[in-house]
Amino acid sequence: MLGLPARVETLPGDPLTVGTETSTLAQRYLRVRDRSLRLCEPLAIEDYGVQPMPDASPPKWHLAHTTWFFETFLLKPRVEGYRPFRDEFEYLYNSYYNGVGRQFPRPQRGNLSRPTVDEVREYRAHVDRAMESLLEAPDAAVEARTILGLHHEQQHQELLLTDLKYNFGHNPLYPVYPDGPVAPAARKREACSVEFDGGVLEIGATPDTGFVFDNETPRHRVFLGSYALADRLVTNGEYLAFMQDDGYSRPELWLADGWSLLHSGAGWAAPLYWLRMENGWYEYHLTGLAPLDPDRPVIHVSYYEADAFSRWAGARLPTEQEWEAAVESPSADRLDQRTGAAWQWTSSAYGSYPGYRPLPGALGEYNGKFMSNQMVLRGGSCATPDGHVRPSYRNFFYPPDRWQFSGIRLAHDR
Amino acid sequence: MLGLPARVETLPGDPLTVGTETSTLAQRYLRVRDRSLRLCEPLAIEDYGVQPMPDASPPKWHLAHTTWFFETFLLKPRVEGYRPFRDEFEYLYNSYYNGVGRQFPRPQRGNLSRPTVDEVREYRAHVDRAMESLLEAPDAAVEARTILGLHHEQQHQELLLTDLKYNFGHNPLYPVYPDGPVAPAARKREACSVEFDGGVLEIGATPDTGFVFDNETPRHRVFLGSYALADRLVTNGEYLAFMQDDGYSRPELWLADGWSLLHSGAGWAAPLYWLRMENGWYEYHLTGLAPLDPDRPVIHVSYYEADAFSRWAGARLPTEQEWEAAVESPSADRLDQRTGAAWQWTSSAYGSYPGYRPLPGALGEYNGKFMSNQMVLRGGSCATPDGHVRPSYRNFFYPPDRWQFSGIRLAHDR
Amino acid sequence: MLGLPARVETLPGDPLTVGTETSTLAQRYLRVRDRSLRLCEPLAIEDYGVQPMPDASPPKWHLAHTTWFFETFLLKPRVEGYRPFRDEFEYLYNSYYNGVGRQFPRPQRGNLSRPTVDEVREYRAHVDRAMESLLEAPDAAVEARTILGLHHEQQHQELLLTDLKYNFGHNPLYPVYPDGPVAPAARKREACSVEFDGGVLEIGATPDTGFVFDNETPRHRVFLGSYALADRLVTNGEYLAFMQDDGYSRPELWLADGWSLLHSGAGWAAPLYWLRMENGWYEYHLTGLAPLDPDRPVIHVSYYEADAFSRWAGARLPTEQEWEAAVESPSADRLDQRTGAAWQWTSSAYGSYPGYRPLPGALGEYNGKFMSNQMVLRGGSCATPDGHVRPSYRNFFYPPDRWQFSGIRLAHDR
Amino acid sequence: MLGLPARVETLPGDPLTVGTETSTLAQRYLRVRDRSLRLCEPLAIEDYGVQPMPDASPPKWHLAHTTWFFETFLLKPRVEGYRPFRDEFEYLYNSYYNGVGRQFPRPQRGNLSRPTVDEVREYRAHVDRAMESLLEAPDAAVEARTILGLHHEQQHQELLLTDLKYNFGHNPLYPVYPDGPVAPAARKREACSVEFDGGVLEIGATPDTGFVFDNETPRHRVFLGSYALADRLVTNGEYLAFMQDDGYSRPELWLADGWSLLHSGAGWAAPLYWLRMENGWYEYHLTGLAPLDPDRPVIHVSYYEADAFSRWAGARLPTEQEWEAAVESPSADRLDQRTGAAWQWTSSAYGSYPGYRPLPGALGEYNGKFMSNQMVLRGGSCATPDGHVRPSYRNFFYPPDRWQFSGIRLAHDR
Repeated sequence: MLGLPARVETLPGDPLTVGTETSTLAQRYLRVRDRSLRLCEPLAIEDYGVQPMPDASPPKWHLAHTTWFFETFLLKPRVEGYRPFRDEFEYLYNSYYNGVGRQFPRPQRGNLSRPTVDEVREYRAHVDRAMESLLEAPDAAVEARTILGLHHEQQHQELLLTDLKYNFGHNPLYPVYPDGPVAPAARKREACSVEFDGGVLEIGATPDTGFVFDNETPRHRVFLGSYALADRLVTNGEYLAFMQDDGYSRPELWLADGWSLLHSGAGWAAPLYWLRMENGWYEYHLTGLAPLDPDRPVIHVSYYEADAFSRWAGARLPTEQEWEAAVESPSADRLDQRTGAAWQWTSSAYGSYPGYRPLPGALGEYNGKFMSNQMVLRGGSCATPDGHVRPSYRNFFYPPDRWQFSGIRLAHDR
Repeated sequence: MLGLPARVETLPGDPLTVGTETSTLAQRYLRVRDRSLRLCEPLAIEDYGVQPMPDASPPKWHLAHTTWFFETFLLKPRVEGYRPFRDEFEYLYNSYYNGVGRQFPRPQRGNLSRPTVDEVREYRAHVDRAMESLLEAPDAAVEARTILGLHHEQQHQELLLTDLKYNFGHNPLYPVYPDGPVAPAARKREACSVEFDGGVLEIGATPDTGFVFDNETPRHRVFLGSYALADRLVTNGEYLAFMQDDGYSRPELWLADGWSLLHSGAGWAAPLYWLRMENGWYEYHLTGLAPLDPDRPVIHVSYYEADAFSRWAGARLPTEQEWEAAVESPSADRLDQRTGAAWQWTSSAYGSYPGYRPLPGALGEYNGKFMSNQMVLRGGSCATPDGHVRPSYRNFFYPPDRWQFSGIRLAHDR
Repeated sequence: MLGLPARVETLPGDPLTVGTETSTLAQRYLRVRDRSLRLCEPLAIEDYGVQPMPDASPPKWHLAHTTWFFETFLLKPRVEGYRPFRDEFEYLYNSYYNGVGRQFPRPQRGNLSRPTVDEVREYRAHVDRAMESLLEAPDAAVEARTILGLHHEQQHQELLLTDLKYNFGHNPLYPVYPDGPVAPAARKREACSVEFDGGVLEIGATPDTGFVFDNETPRHRVFLGSYALADRLVTNGEYLAFMQDDGYSRPELWLADGWSLLHSGAGWAAPLYWLRMENGWYEYHLTGLAPLDPDRPVIHVSYYEADAFSRWAGARLPTEQEWEAAVESPSADRLDQRTGAAWQWTSSAYGSYPGYRPLPGALGEYNGKFMSNQMVLRGGSCATPDGHVRPSYRNFFYPPDRWQFSGIRLAHDR
Repeated sequence: MLGLPARVETLPGDPLTVGTETSTLAQRYLRVRDRSLRLCEPLAIEDYGVQPMPDASPPKWHLAHTTWFFETFLLKPRVEGYRPFRDEFEYLYNSYYNGVGRQFPRPQRGNLSRPTVDEVREYRAHVDRAMESLLEAPDAAVEARTILGLHHEQQHQELLLTDLKYNFGHNPLYPVYPDGPVAPAARKREACSVEFDGGVLEIGATPDTGFVFDNETPRHRVFLGSYALADRLVTNGEYLAFMQDDGYSRPELWLADGWSLLHSGAGWAAPLYWLRMENGWYEYHLTGLAPLDPDRPVIHVSYYEADAFSRWAGARLPTEQEWEAAVESPSADRLDQRTGAAWQWTSSAYGSYPGYRPLPGALGEYNGKFMSNQMVLRGGSCATPDGHVRPSYRNFFYPPDRWQFSGIRLAHDR
């Protein structure tokens, strides 16, 4: 999900939904960049460097990589005489862009005690100063790439929290991140179905959507049968009922690959961050360990768990097309928790839309490259920056992934 | 792909395309069963037991497991007083049916020197005698399950050859399986595009298709844009050009997971069974090692290689819907090698059709269970039994799998 | 333990303890070679090819590799115009001799369905014919290497049975090898200590020992304190008492590496081949599954288990010097089961004797090469060919190895 | 090597060679404890938490674990009403004492961003205050355990530097630890042999040695043949000659396990911390990257490399008895670099001395437990605290370990 290139050439005027429409791009740049630092304010220096699993990058890495993005794709190619902050960073903070060059091995990001946090902050300041100059009179391409870089940074703001939660949630001391995001309960406890008509519908970003990633394009027609979606996400209470009904022990509920995973060392018997204590179930939130709240949405489940739960419930997961069509329909308001609570697993494998075209160059190198083995999630979570998502937004992760704020919305045929 | 339940309740009268329509079911049963033994006639006893990788089961196992299928799903539940050949076989030859019970670990199938081949033949004879009695007056359900078991056995006939090829193709002595299947060249050397119109089309088996697996149902509408398919499969010569153009060394051509695989020990630099000798490239066929024939279709490529090749060629892989619609269209005859040469990778992840319903009981337990992480292949190969496939037939394997007779047909948007 | 070079130059007249002293070398050659085939007589063809774990080579491989040894180290270098049976065998049946060339990967020996058993028998006959000619008028070097080859073959005769037991002992059908070796109980049930005086003693083969492997040389002085050895091996009954006293659950009894192994997937809670059934413990012997006999020696234990048991028993394992000195002492007769029951783990790491010299050339290439990470076992088991071992004989395996006929003799300080 | 129990009951008056003999135990306690903090002064906060491989624990962990040692083995059992700093630390900082309880998994020590460095310092201060009170009037057992704890802390002071070097030496920025230890060159460039007579000799700590670890006892007799040792360690220049003579590519020089390691992903072709740059070889020291100095001793080699080098040089490694006897002999002065440069691999597997007795209780639980699969190193390195080692001191690591300051002294038979 990192660094998906935008349709940079075609969307120079994107308003970037963070901030008012009258902000200059330089102002918006600083605002987004500043938010990354503010997210880190509650952290101890020690928290910036930890990578408790290969997918959970250290905060320091996120701060540096997002900076690298502007340095690599804007300052180096577009600012004559630009002096890189430090030559080694081209390698150290390249995430996966083969077109740029070799990459420091991902699983070892947590092994870099140097540069220090202070040095990374200096790196950010160095790049920000150069970007401010560049943004004094940006051409359309600079504008487009800057906007892309800001959306990229917003994605990493969510990942920073997600990865931090993995760190804190696996530390026996269960540290607290004050005022951290917690997925909110739905407006009402009872769940209802909302019905939608099928037919030939259009899916994907429209030309007037504003900034979009290129995997949301081109807009295209699909045929859908009639269907229904639950008007809220599956709750912890409902998921607990699945567990108490031996959900994790009944092979008929599980995809074969998920069942294998359950029995090959993963040892899953509950969502990530659920802990059984003597006096009942607890859930770790970024705000600390708390008794399980049955009304909050279940989060941090894998695709396999989402799929097994839906089968147990006599339902299924929606396709990404069903999800998008519903959220763009006049009945969308009846669907609570469309965004702001949890990413919602769909039954759609992540792939290219018909007619999809990758961008030229290193930025575009990677669009197709993640289009295998992953599933689409839709919506946006409590950790997603305000205004970052839209109905056509496609997030994607591997079926076993659980460290994202990922939950479940049920669907039915009609 | 093994043991996909059929719509057994609804298709009792399936003609089974092997043999004439006037055959009795018992006759057809014996004919299919006999073919499994005849396929093994060229084998030495030593060849029956080898499992050179977890996916490539020993011939002896295929002979026993297909027999287990009839014993488990017909004789045990339907023949009063049936005496199992040997109690331990329920465990030993259960492939993956949790509803039946525990399974002998798949990667260890090649470690079972006992039962001997003779004992497995006795097992087959024992079950065949009981089946013959049962088929003297079968009810509709028995007929349906028998037909399912015969299609199941045909699938294993192909796998037996596929797995044997893996064994022989990795033996430094390169043994020969006389008259083994070899993918034939296309009718003509030049490739052309065949164009197809899009729109709302129907996909999936029709009620009058005859026997089908349940993953081919229900028939449903999809919307397709207009597209074109190559009228023949990609050839060895074309694939060699891709290799000589550094196809395996250019990250921009590859899906990220495929690129990782290339660089994590797999060491792929050519299709499976290609060998570089001093005097050029060779290819191992079941009929022995031979100089690479540039006109034959490239086979034994993974999804990643098929996808990278298509990108290199400025094309793409077809979706399974495009493939099926084309093969069911009036222009189908213009597509050479639709079947009988190689399974054709599609860009479609294997999933359920809208409204798909699994069968009840252990037979139906597993339909959904393979619907993650795999890609659909269409067509049928030179190793597929005559009459086994049809346009709606969906084969599926994991993206890295190469030991199947899997090839490439290119597609384009129009 | 395979292929340890002998002191070939110095021991041409070795009598080879198999057979009478008056046999010619050619007669002795045929007698040892024939025994390998006779050991295989009870096997089904299917049994010849199975390798259920990397260490347990298939019988067919043992038959071919021992033949390769004569072809490689005698026929090819010493018989002008010798025509190898098949060129590929130089690679296929090279176990680990880098000086000869590359080796077919050991873990894949069980994947070679070809050559067939018949072809391997032809290979043996081909080599035997050439060896018979060579042995009509052997020079001293030929004699010495032939004798080495025969001892090598005897080692593989034991391994063949050991590996076969691993195969049969892991097959749910528990096949029977008629009249297979079973470790006999001691002459008397009560165990006593036999005391030995320390001092400066000589260890290692003497010049008049006859054939020895070079790791038994040179004879050298060591200083030993006074000690005592148990006059028989530890029994199944005693080992069961250890288990019932929570022996496998008490970390204070275990070496750290052994304790880690217990808790990292090995799942050991009893010796290999012990099975808990509803009505008590059983042990698999080559002659079949039988109720555990408390009087037989415990076998198929790892070094870690032997060490933990000895600590639990308030004793320790003997050093290899203590073992050898005792068996060469006048009190040796008081030690039952010195050989013919089980190899006896010692507390001595396998290393070189002071002044040890490897042989020149490929044969000698490997003597030092196994002298790390392994422990010495002394004695000889019920599966060891008659006359193969002697007091100075050093067997060696890794601490976790359990598939050998390995048992425990306790020692104490005095 | 961590936490080896001392003969605590018998050596209460140990002078602890750090500091003057007239220091009180409390003064010596504070001096050793303070040194740990001073070693960390050059570190950035970020450096305290990194664990770049399972064996290389973070500095923060070393600071906390050594504190845990005093808390666990002195304060909790001996100070009534002692309030632990934090209950979770009993689990978090237990290295491997099963007798104390469960242990936080070693490979995840680097994942603990909390407690912070400041909290660990508070932990140290908390424990130090309680220890100071306890040491106002210690009984003999308290004195003995305190002295053990100080030697334990000294061991961790060396490990802290060793592990930090692994961190910095794998960071592409090659950070500098100012004034860090660097192994010094020998007094003279030419190497000579120093000869020693064999016979029955005594090995092990004597009763008047002062503090010793129990693995150095009991003193006992051994028989040694006459031998010679090189009067200095092998140099970088000599090791480079081995490399240039294809030392890493000649199987005849290597132990089989070492050769396998070279070919199974380790990719070793030089000592750890050697880097080939365009203008020649460099070596990373804690003081930074520098051109390879041919006169300094080669360090950071595994046992396999030390053994292969010695074979290439026509020599061998000494046994630990040879090393100790030489260093305790009148000719000891002729051996340069006995200590203070590099630990010296011996050919002796780490095992128990005859008559060795473990201590009672959790402290003694682990003495035997490391006595398998490891090799003894003798001497002491440039990173070893002054006065920490003695001639009978036995260090031990696994044959593949290279991250220690481990070098080579050659030996010969006479």
